[in-house]
Amino acid sequence: MQQLSIDDIEDIARGAGILGTGGGGDPYIGKMLLAEEYRRGSVATLMDPDELADDALVVASAFMGAPSVVMERIPSGDEAVEALRVLERRLGRPVTAVVPMECGGLNSMIPLLVAAKTGIPIVDADGMGRAFPELQMETFGVYGVSGSPIAICDDRGHSVIVDTGSDNVSMERHARGVTIRMGGVAYIAEYPMSGADLKRTAIPRTLTLAQSIGKAVATAKSMNRSPLEAVTDCCANSIYGHARLLLEGKVVDVARATSGGFVSGTAEVRAFDDSRSVTLTFQNEHLIAREGDRVLAIVPDLVSVLDIETGLAINTESLRFGQRVHVVGISTPPIMRTPEALQVFGPAAFGLTEPWTPLEDIGVAAGALP
Amino acid sequence: MQQLSIDDIEDIARGAGILGTGGGGDPYIGKMLLAEEYRRGSVATLMDPDELADDALVVASAFMGAPSVVMERIPSGDEAVEALRVLERRLGRPVTAVVPMECGGLNSMIPLLVAAKTGIPIVDADGMGRAFPELQMETFGVYGVSGSPIAICDDRGHSVIVDTGSDNVSMERHARGVTIRMGGVAYIAEYPMSGADLKRTAIPRTLTLAQSIGKAVATAKSMNRSPLEAVTDCCANSIYGHARLLLEGKVVDVARATSGGFVSGTAEVRAFDDSRSVTLTFQNEHLIAREGDRVLAIVPDLVSVLDIETGLAINTESLRFGQRVHVVGISTPPIMRTPEALQVFGPAAFGLTEPWTPLEDIGVAAGALP
Repeated sequence: MQQLSIDDIEDIARGAGILGTGGGGDPYIGKMLLAEEYRRGSVATLMDPDELADDALVVASAFMGAPSVVMERIPSGDEAVEALRVLERRLGRPVTAVVPMECGGLNSMIPLLVAAKTGIPIVDADGMGRAFPELQMETFGVYGVSGSPIAICDDRGHSVIVDTGSDNVSMERHARGVTIRMGGVAYIAEYPMSGADLKRTAIPRTLTLAQSIGKAVATAKSMNRSPLEAVTDCCANSIYGHARLLLEGKVVDVARATSGGFVSGTAEVRAFDDSRSVTLTFQNEHLIAREGDRVLAIVPDLVSVLDIETGLAINTESLRFGQRVHVVGISTPPIMRTPEALQVFGPAAFGLTEPWTPLEDIGVAAGALP
Repeated sequence: MQQLSIDDIEDIARGAGILGTGGGGDPYIGKMLLAEEYRRGSVATLMDPDELADDALVVASAFMGAPSVVMERIPSGDEAVEALRVLERRLGRPVTAVVPMECGGLNSMIPLLVAAKTGIPIVDADGMGRAFPELQMETFGVYGVSGSPIAICDDRGHSVIVDTGSDNVSMERHARGVTIRMGGVAYIAEYPMSGADLKRTAIPRTLTLAQSIGKAVATAKSMNRSPLEAVTDCCANSIYGHARLLLEGKVVDVARATSGGFVSGTAEVRAFDDSRSVTLTFQNEHLIAREGDRVLAIVPDLVSVLDIETGLAINTESLRFGQRVHVVGISTPPIMRTPEALQVFGPAAFGLTEPWTPLEDIGVAAGALP
């Protein structure tokens, strides 16, 4: 167990933005709420998965819906705690630890806020290893944990509990409908599971990985290396195993539409010398990077767009013409690449016809990459 | 306490169709399910409100959504029982008795089915004194009972609990969204309340009233009187106090649209000698009967359309050109006419600009009515 400082949290936010592969929301509001909570003397405690008892009760914590709405309806921070309490009452026992649903800006901050506000530890792990747009796309569910019952709360003190048994797709469908009627954003507690199940199904130690990445990016300049190098080094030395630059260039086109509660679209990044062009397709998060017909990286592997100067991630809502960026591919840990996992969040789950190919197996054309 | 025979249930269905003022769904499926349940030896037990202990736990039982979908997705009857059980688990105590949410064909049968299947008595009362399209339109809520928590179940074993505290309008909005995502029909248990609250807020003895009306209509011919007379007599001798024929004639026009989960529209009934024409406006249930600019009856008072020969109610989904009908107005009990009640289900709640006027205060033009 380890108490996280507010600097640790800044690092986690920075790193989780990169692992969030364009989604998970802007962490800004979350960091502000955490800073306020820390000023009141609260502290979030990080717990390694190995420290969890097998019979512990762990619950995934997150916001759900449109990140843009969060900026218009700033939460008090109590909504996500209330979701946890509603689920505890349903289950009839107290939660031992919370775990992030996903890696991603705001959704790394929300469970930290819950941990700081309640004193309940947060497990150093998550259920997506990146960000994904839907609740059934969690490794917890892939490996047999039911998302139900899920508690959904809003900022008016209203709560909903959805229980669809082991049918996590229906759980997502109902929770999405409730979130839309709650005004486009809600706070959830889901996938109640044992400590043993958490250890079996979660992507381990992604909070400390985010922290390392965030810290390396922030200190790169003072260490005389590029932020890009800091990111690829950190990823290569983790269970993710491999990261590479896909293109250095400028955002020259963004087409984005909001429908069904998602932000979907494409973005084109062109090399500064116009020699190459990469198109990114996203549904909240980046799904695929293509150069012409050639796939450079495909879901569940990560595609992140980083500001060239700062190394900070630019999420899909914030992409705009003229940004100077590094498009980076990051491979995923083996637990996210099994046939069961690919069935739930592989290319076909997003309507992509390209076959799944691990990033590190995609040939790099000679001279194509710097 | 009184055990209801299957003949009693037939009478209740017939009478509740008339009190249902065009809504509440076709009782046919419900009667079939009850007949099957009775063949297995089950019996529904009716309880007078006065027999309820003040600290009893009473729950309103119903289906919610589009009656037409019920005919396409015939329930097993266990869905409404499951909603009751889910709510019991939430409340942590067993239900003493169920009560119908409303008077109306199918929604009089569903709580009887729950009573027969579980052995839990059904209270001789209801929360609408007719049928209404939305869940906040219950006298329970008008007089301070919270609809929350409400349990909502479908035929796939999925359940949702909505808790919006004392905000019954938000409860309806969320429950409606869930029902739509469940495929257009769901089974609910709502307005958990004490026996004291039931006695204070319900319309009393509407099941036995429906039974009397149903029996009188069925036996009218053998008693040498018209079914119409049977209906108006029964209503006049009840807490409803007054009923009158508004028009005898033929359905000459029906305009109906399904949207937002409701069936809305208008129907025109013309006297056989073309001397008069009455237009009915409905949202699931009839809201107002007008003759030109003149109001003949207005919500919450009842407008029912009865087949001339049989005296059976024709619901708003079944109205069609050429039907020979009696359009009947029935006044409502005082508990449904207070300022608090009219605010929730008076004319303005349905967007009508006409002021509320009690049926019995509306002047009858000399010679206008038979």
